[in-house]
Amino acid sequence: MSASRLQRIQQVLNQRQPDLTAVMAGVHKEHNVSAVMRTCDAVGAWEIHSVGQDGRLVIKRTAAAGVQRWVRLHQHPDVAEGCRALRDRGFQLVAAHLCDEAVDFREVDYTRPTALVLGREKLGVPEAALAQVDTAIRIPMAGFTDSLNVSVAAAVVLYEAQRQRLEAGLYDQRRLDDETYRRTLFEWVQP
Amino acid sequence: MSASRLQRIQQVLNQRQPDLTAVMAGVHKEHNVSAVMRTCDAVGAWEIHSVGQDGRLVIKRTAAAGVQRWVRLHQHPDVAEGCRALRDRGFQLVAAHLCDEAVDFREVDYTRPTALVLGREKLGVPEAALAQVDTAIRIPMAGFTDSLNVSVAAAVVLYEAQRQRLEAGLYDQRRLDDETYRRTLFEWVQP
Ligand SMILES: C[S@@+](CC[C@H](N)C(=O)[O-])C[C@H]1O[C@@H](n2cnc3c(N)ncnc32)[C@H](O)[C@@H]1O
Ligand SMILES: C[S@@+](CC[C@H](N)C(=O)[O-])C[C@H]1O[C@@H](n2cnc3c(N)ncnc32)[C@H](O)[C@@H]1O
Repeated sequence: MSASRLQRIQQVLNQRQPDLTAVMAGVHKEHNVSAVMRTCDAVGAWEIHSVGQDGRLVIKRTAAAGVQRWVRLHQHPDVAEGCRALRDRGFQLVAAHLCDEAVDFREVDYTRPTALVLGREKLGVPEAALAQVDTAIRIPMAGFTDSLNVSVAAAVVLYEAQRQRLEAGLYDQRRLDDETYRRTLFEWVQP
Repeated sequence: MSASRLQRIQQVLNQRQPDLTAVMAGVHKEHNVSAVMRTCDAVGAWEIHSVGQDGRLVIKRTAAAGVQRWVRLHQHPDVAEGCRALRDRGFQLVAAHLCDEAVDFREVDYTRPTALVLGREKLGVPEAALAQVDTAIRIPMAGFTDSLNVSVAAAVVLYEAQRQRLEAGLYDQRRLDDETYRRTLFEWVQP
């Protein structure tokens, strides 16, 4: 390992946000899963969740497969249990979901521990997930399209979170605890 | 046509931004083209451009095909000519492109007439387009991923443009000239 590679790994670890994550609630198209995971990595999410897949999410494509090393994917066959586990860890659950009660996505405070819940390509966020969320958010749309692509919606919200966290200085000091930092550094320097 | 449908059409037309557009510079994967077009519609882009396809961009999927009615797709086989045509109309050309000279995407003033240039899935923005752009922008990434999905990158920038234009009041008053407004209204009320 070169010195610059080690430095890069440390830099990434120093910016990882243990309290920012996304929950793919039935998102299953390969290109969407891949795009969401790349965006999560880019905003520094520490982990990513998939809830309620029939069976398990199979990640075939190289792009997404590679990202999994840097953003760990946790799979929860049961939607409600997966969401509850995140709530129990102190995350606010924010669902990207176009309903009457949804607030503008820019109104939410994403500097708080946040899990962004994303819905299925055709059917949106499952009821069992909606039952657990704290807030529903909408990305305003001024045209005739009914909804945005799910990986697009994820990115718009996650980059608003990134903006707020940048402003709040959350990328300026290490957010991981010492033990996690050391353990992961050790793991990531392995070839 | 119901009264509410007519009202919806007028509302969309009243928010259309004749001076905001995207240029797909060789973007060709169906799901990316579709996602970019839906996002363009959602932020009120009046038109969309495709430059430098070998032959023409074929839009098969229903989702994107439907959007084409509301956001007109202009195809320019020649990259340089397509870009020049937009410059001649007074657009600043802003390329989403990760290079050393790229500035943070949030530093650009998108309330000016803006065409966002997007690069190919594998090869990025073609040289012939780069030769014409005013500014290259980057979306900051804090992980190991080399680049974002192109429709994701498009959305992050276009929603920054939407934010700036919202703040500047550009969605509050009609931006289309009377003739274009009337002509399009007539067209859109046809079944
Ligand atoms: C293609 S949409 C699903 C649309 C589905 N027909 C529905 O009504 O929920 C896939 C997912 O993208 C997200 N999404 C798309 N557009 C959105 C918007 N404008 N605001 C918030 N979330 C959005 C939501 O998580 C949604 O479940
Ligand atoms: C998958 S990327 C292409 C990557 C290609 N290997 C390159 O180096 O240009 C496809 C397009 O998405 C856009 N893009 C992706 N990530 C970006 C970022 N972080 N900043 C700006 N544009 C980005 C650019 O327009 C790029 O051409």
